Parts: sequence; structure tokens; C-alpha cells
Amino acid sequence: MMNNSHSSATTLLDFSAWATEKQARIESVLNSTLPAANATPQKLHSAMRYSALEGGKRVRALLCYAASELCSTEVKVADTAACAVELIHAYSLVHDDMPCMDDDDLRRGKPSCHKQFDDATALLVGDALQSLAFEVLSQSNLCAETHHQISMLNILAKASGSTGMAGGQAIDLASVGKMLSQSDLEQMHQLKTGALIQAAVLLGGINGDKEKSAAISTYAKNIGLAFQVIDDILDVEADSSTLGKTAGKDADSNKPTYVSILGLADAKQHAQYLYNNAIEALIPFGESALRLRELAGFITQRRF
Amino acid sequence: MMNNSHSSATTLLDFSAWATEKQARIESVLNSTLPAANATPQKLHSAMRYSALEGGKRVRALLCYAASELCSTEVKVADTAACAVELIHAYSLVHDDMPCMDDDDLRRGKPSCHKQFDDATALLVGDALQSLAFEVLSQSNLCAETHHQISMLNILAKASGSTGMAGGQAIDLASVGKMLSQSDLEQMHQLKTGALIQAAVLLGGINGDKEKSAAISTYAKNIGLAFQVIDDILDVEADSSTLGKTAGKDADSNKPTYVSILGLADAKQHAQYLYNNAIEALIPFGESALRLRELAGFITQRRF
Repeated sequence: MMNNSHSSATTLLDFSAWATEKQARIESVLNSTLPAANATPQKLHSAMRYSALEGGKRVRALLCYAASELCSTEVKVADTAACAVELIHAYSLVHDDMPCMDDDDLRRGKPSCHKQFDDATALLVGDALQSLAFEVLSQSNLCAETHHQISMLNILAKASGSTGMAGGQAIDLASVGKMLSQSDLEQMHQLKTGALIQAAVLLGGINGDKEKSAAISTYAKNIGLAFQVIDDILDVEADSSTLGKTAGKDADSNKPTYVSILGLADAKQHAQYLYNNAIEALIPFGESALRLRELAGFITQRRF
Repeated sequence: MMNNSHSSATTLLDFSAWATEKQARIESVLNSTLPAANATPQKLHSAMRYSALEGGKRVRALLCYAASELCSTEVKVADTAACAVELIHAYSLVHDDMPCMDDDDLRRGKPSCHKQFDDATALLVGDALQSLAFEVLSQSNLCAETHHQISMLNILAKASGSTGMAGGQAIDLASVGKMLSQSDLEQMHQLKTGALIQAAVLLGGINGDKEKSAAISTYAKNIGLAFQVIDDILDVEADSSTLGKTAGKDADSNKPTYVSILGLADAKQHAQYLYNNAIEALIPFGESALRLRELAGFITQRRF
């Protein structure tokens, strides 16, 4: 059975134990949220489960849970928000991997959805995972404050759409072979990955007061960009087996990255700068921001 | 300026004038909802507008407005609901036309989105139109009753997902070359087109009491299926220029249809039967159900 309190924040698990607990928790929430593999249409549901379960480090869910601990957001709300954000993330990976997009055969060490199934199924998997994210987040009686629930839906929808994640992917596609300025690159990533990371933090912190909301926004913006800088660094430094996806892909496909624009050393320094900004935003909140602080460290030092 | 009352229901415009007014109205709502074509990313936004504007007969929006008149749903809520449903419909057409799906080059007499732009853009257009539907429906201060708004979001999300429209499309793909029973075909269409048509009616009728909600559910289920039967009949009887899309496509691609299963005469009779069921559900509501009744006639007699 899952623990229905924020006990992990008070019993001082170390970060790794806390993260492991939350990763298991979100896996369990996703498992019970996704339709059964034998429910009609079976192929679609199997492919949705294939694409959304056993997925990566769950950084977005961890950010959501960490923000919920700072803002004392109800556990059920945090579970649902983390689940919705991970469903959106999973849908975006399925569509991004498709032949007409990044054409990637490997995802998290397994064949990507369109390779394991087929292109039509991958298209529908992404579409249906997006719908499911909004379905779980609009379930009845989720929040005591219904306007919080409507806000969460609106934040997630904006973060996913043409002025968020999908828009960032469009800019990314259009920038292949171009030399972007650092500020253009930053804008692209702010949309492509930053918007959803920011949404994860804001949804988890939906119960926060104005001061906390502003602080976690700043935190999220910086940590979202740091995440991408590190991703670009890993794309150069790691090999495919440790990365779980095709390494060197961005350089090969002539995409501008932080490394190609700043060079490796300056990219690392920039990640550190963004980390510092994120940490600074949390200063007023002391120990209640512990998990957010630890996550910032985890994200900027992560190795897969 | 748009009229902000249900005046058309009381001044007794004839159906054609009422429909023309509502078609102009939803076009205007969509036009102001979709991001400007020159907003970044411009290609994506241009393609979203290309795919969602100047679109067909707007049957789903008309159903939404008609139900709003029966249930005295606020005009702003009806506008927003109609807009959200049309955005979901537009996204589904863009993805359905893609090469990995139905591979259709023509939509509403124009090149389909992936032909006019490219496959990657079409994929993102569909994704972003879906997000936008949930974004408009989750705007703050839409409904006096916030639980109505959360219900609308939930109904639309369910209707769009793997146990609604996307699921119906998956069953459709899996049924190519198979001989389905009438009941299997009905289940497929209930998901593929029926679920969203039902959502259009339920969202428009969100302000209705229990009796009205039950009646419009029955109405919607029958009219949703009738819509599909007529679509199958038109696919056989019309030519591409009047249909605005490739005619004879379903038969060519060896897809089961009501015509292939029942024959043309029985398919027409079945459409009539479904029409009768829909009309019967509206009997208790007299003149306030006028537009829903007229729409049922319009849908079963439509010729493009």
C-alpha cells in the first residue's frame, strides 16, 4: 500500500531513498491509471503502457512531489499532477521519436514505440496519452479548491501546446543546420523542455502562497534550462548504452546545442550558474525546500 | 460584434439562417482563440490556423449550440465548449490524414495539412490543437459553477482518448480487410466519431437537469451513429469534388462500412431508424429542442 502522507519529508530519508520511493510511487500511480493491456483496443492500450511505464528517472514527477512537500499540497493532488505530467512527457517522447520527427529507434534502452509497434499506433499512443493526462487531472472531487484544479489543467495545457512544448519542438525542427544565438537556443529549450518542467513544479506547488509560487517559478525556470544544458553535455560525453538512447544524435543531425554554441567547458559553467539561481530562489524556505534543493543537485550532476 | 444572447432560439430564424449564424460565430471564436499566424513559431501557428479555420459544416459546434439552447447554458460557456470540440475534431482530421494513418491528400477541398506543410508540422499541429482545446476549456472564470467546468473537461478528455476517438481510430485501423458484424462496426463508430459528437451535445447541455442530460445523451448517441451511416452512404454516392475529400476511399481501402455490411438500401433505412430514436428522446421538451431536432434532420439528409 502507498503511504498517504508527506512522511518522507519529515523522517529525513536521504535523497536517494526519497527518490526511489517516489519513483516507485509514480510507477504505481501510472500503472493503475493506464487502461489495462487487455482492454479494447488492446494493441493501443499495450502500446500506451509500453511507452509510459518503466520510464527513466521520472525527474518531472520528482519535481512535482518535491514542490508538493514545500507547499503542503495534498498527496492525492500531487500523485495526480505527477501522473498527468509524466503522461504528457511520455506522449512527447513517442511523437518525437517518430520517423517524420527525430526518427529515433531507441528510447530508454528499448525499441521506441513506432519500432516496437508501428507508426500509426505510435501516433495514436501519443494522442491518447495526452488526452489521458487531461482526463486524470479533471477527475471529480480531486481538490477541495476547484479553482486550483482548473488552474492546474490550464497550466498543463499551456505548457504542452504551441506556446509550450509543441512550439519548442517546432522551433527545434526549424533550427536544424542553423547557428542560433544563445538567447534563441534558450528560448527554444524554455519551450521544448522548460515549460513542462516548470508545469511539474507549479502543479505540485498548487497549494503554495504567492511568495512560494513566485520562488518555485524561478527555481523551475532555471532548473529546466539546466536540465537541457546537461542533456546536451551528456549527448557529447556519454555513449548510447549508458544514455539509453542514441548518443551523439544532436551533433550528427546538425542541431545547435549548448555545447556547439558555448563549448563544453562553458556549457558546464552555465549549468552551474543556472543551478545557483535555482538554489538561491529557495533560500527563504529552509528545510521545507530540501527535496527541491537536492533535485537541483541531482539534475545538474546526473549521469545515466 | 457577436450577439451574447440565445436570441436566435426565440426569434425563430429558420434553420438555415440559424446554422449560418452559428457557423459564422464559431469561426469567429476559433479565429480569436487560435494564436496569430505571425506569433512564434510562425509555421506551426499558420498550419494550426490552416487546419482549424474555414472548416466544413461545423456540425459539432452546431450540436453544442443547439444543446446549449435547450439547457439555457450561458453563451460564453457554449462558445468555449463549441470551440474546444471543434479544435479536437480539427486535430483528429490532421492526424487521420497523415501518411501513416489514412494517407489522404485532400481535406475539405484543400491539400491536407501534411501536404500543404510537412509531416512533422502536421504531427505537431494535431498535438497543439489538442492542447489548445483543453487550454480554452480550462480558462479561469468560465463557469459560475466550477464543477461544471471540470465535468466538461473530463467529458471531452474521455471522448478524445483511448476509450473514445483515438480508440475508435485504432479499431478502425485494425479492421481494414476484415468483415465486421454490424455490432462491432457500431462499437467502432461509437468511439471513432460518436464519442466526440456526444461530447459536443453534453458540453453544450452542461447546464441541463438530470432529465435533459439523459435525453440529450440518447439523442447524441443515435445522431452520432446516424452521422457515420450517412458518411458511409456519401462515400459511395458522392464524388470527390462535392465531398471535398477523396470519395470511394473506404471501399478502395477495403474498410468495412455500413454500406458494405448492410447494403445501400438497408444503410439508408438504418439512418432513418437512428434519426427516429434521436427525435423521440426530445419529445418531452417541445419547442426548446427545436434546433436539436432540426439538426438531426440536417445530419441525416445532408448533402455536400
